[in-house]
Amino acid sequence: MKEDLLRLIDILGTVTFAISGVFAAMEKKLDLFGILIIAFITAIGGGTLRDMLTGDLPVSWMRSIETPLIILASAAGAILFRNVIPNFQKTLFIFDSLGLGFFTVLGIQKGIKFGLTPGICIALGTITGCFGGVIRDMLLNNIPLIFKKEIYATACIIGGLIYFLLLKIDFNRNWIDLVVMLLVFLIRFLSVRFKLSLPVIPSTSLRTQKKGK
Amino acid sequence: MKEDLLRLIDILGTVTFAISGVFAAMEKKLDLFGILIIAFITAIGGGTLRDMLTGDLPVSWMRSIETPLIILASAAGAILFRNVIPNFQKTLFIFDSLGLGFFTVLGIQKGIKFGLTPGICIALGTITGCFGGVIRDMLLNNIPLIFKKEIYATACIIGGLIYFLLLKIDFNRNWIDLVVMLLVFLIRFLSVRFKLSLPVIPSTSLRTQKKGK
Amino acid sequence: MKEDLLRLIDILGTVTFAISGVFAAMEKKLDLFGILIIAFITAIGGGTLRDMLTGDLPVSWMRSIETPLIILASAAGAILFRNVIPNFQKTLFIFDSLGLGFFTVLGIQKGIKFGLTPGICIALGTITGCFGGVIRDMLLNNIPLIFKKEIYATACIIGGLIYFLLLKIDFNRNWIDLVVMLLVFLIRFLSVRFKLSLPVIPSTSLRTQKKGK
Repeated sequence: MKEDLLRLIDILGTVTFAISGVFAAMEKKLDLFGILIIAFITAIGGGTLRDMLTGDLPVSWMRSIETPLIILASAAGAILFRNVIPNFQKTLFIFDSLGLGFFTVLGIQKGIKFGLTPGICIALGTITGCFGGVIRDMLLNNIPLIFKKEIYATACIIGGLIYFLLLKIDFNRNWIDLVVMLLVFLIRFLSVRFKLSLPVIPSTSLRTQKKGK
Repeated sequence: MKEDLLRLIDILGTVTFAISGVFAAMEKKLDLFGILIIAFITAIGGGTLRDMLTGDLPVSWMRSIETPLIILASAAGAILFRNVIPNFQKTLFIFDSLGLGFFTVLGIQKGIKFGLTPGICIALGTITGCFGGVIRDMLLNNIPLIFKKEIYATACIIGGLIYFLLLKIDFNRNWIDLVVMLLVFLIRFLSVRFKLSLPVIPSTSLRTQKKGK
Repeated sequence: MKEDLLRLIDILGTVTFAISGVFAAMEKKLDLFGILIIAFITAIGGGTLRDMLTGDLPVSWMRSIETPLIILASAAGAILFRNVIPNFQKTLFIFDSLGLGFFTVLGIQKGIKFGLTPGICIALGTITGCFGGVIRDMLLNNIPLIFKKEIYATACIIGGLIYFLLLKIDFNRNWIDLVVMLLVFLIRFLSVRFKLSLPVIPSTSLRTQKKGK
């Protein structure tokens, strides 16, 4: 039962990440291939970077054809129904936030499996959840959105901290992943609902340093 | 004989990829080091990403000094003869297309060697052929050209599909690589000759989604 | 004694690289998370890419919590004292150049440990020293600074060449790393002091090639 639920959230997350890639790519007037690649990278970029960093190779999406097929189908669907989808933004937002929670937990668990310290595991969770979007934005020549707006990665980090807190207090292991996933979802959901965001630091320039590297 | 031919195409492909990097970098007014790095990344970026994704490490160009030397020599030649080279665009275009075919087949074969599924092998072939140019464009702050114009990656994908079709019908294994290479070359060549390109999907915006990730 | 000195330089380099990331990120008006990530990537990006290319995985910063903590503390300090730090630009520049030398030597030594050829080892040294800044600039949507201005990577390359020259003439092995580190530091320091830079090649365009890849 719980496995089925998690698998469902995995798929919903992948689907919405891919859809968000399709729309970002269409806005930049990419051709069909460009759109598919951006959909792909948005959906699997975070997990791919995580696997490359930890050495869990070949990266996960190469080991089963299922994820690539789901992404391909989502992208095709998003292109075909591109006029209808914007009406379902709220639903997509919920799937996207659920996906964020799921991928965060997935990254943390991989870190634990590799025997890495909690701090690194939280970093891996955040990378898994967020860096598909970061690579998408780099390819589309935008400064990554999550570096500028709203509480996105922060939700992953807080979720990660709670994960290890729950581990420490011997919380029922069977439920930690679900609890943390929902927590990340909630933080993300509420921060958008109440328009919360991280502070921007007023800058001073560092002239010679700027030339430095 | 066939080995020599393939090796020759490998070298010609590497040389033209490096030259295309030099010219892209000069247009952005990079300094000498910048030009060399872009030449390098254009020529080996695709194979490097493929090796990092599959875990075939250290990446190929680290295992022999030959490829780096060929790239260095090509880049030096391209810089010295930068006024003459534009007269040989047709020749360069043919070498470039041959290189695309060769690198695609190389990627597919690596995938097969690693026991990956056909879909993933085709992806690896496309990555090997195209992602040097993608990373070049990211570094030069452009949206990757192959996401916007002409049939480039598509040639790799079609070539890859034919590769596995030929495997399935028990086509003479000794010739599959050469046939597919020439096919990718031809698709690319004819698509430019007849100005074919992939459709651009007219976009609708997905406002809250845009902010999503 | 020497070990302590090297460790100190490692830390000073990491700290200044992180600080330079913080200021670059503040200039682009990133939020707090964006600033931390850019600080992190500037400090560990070069070594991370090196480890991913050679297959020394999980990448180094995952294997000890010390480096992430140093970066976090540096970034926090840089944000808090952002109005004061620009007064210490000369000191920061010296630390940064020392760090460049240190990271270059570290990369070369890793290459040697992996049994790679001298040319590749020098490339790894240059990547370790410079590519944190390159990835930072890609994320901030700038063309990498080191491709356009001043002698930065060139200092690493010259240092690397001297390293293998010294190895060849049986220079005291205990001192090679320190000598090369100081050499990279000096080249970098003097090139800025005397405003030296690499030539920019006047460009000719290569039209059809441009569309090529």
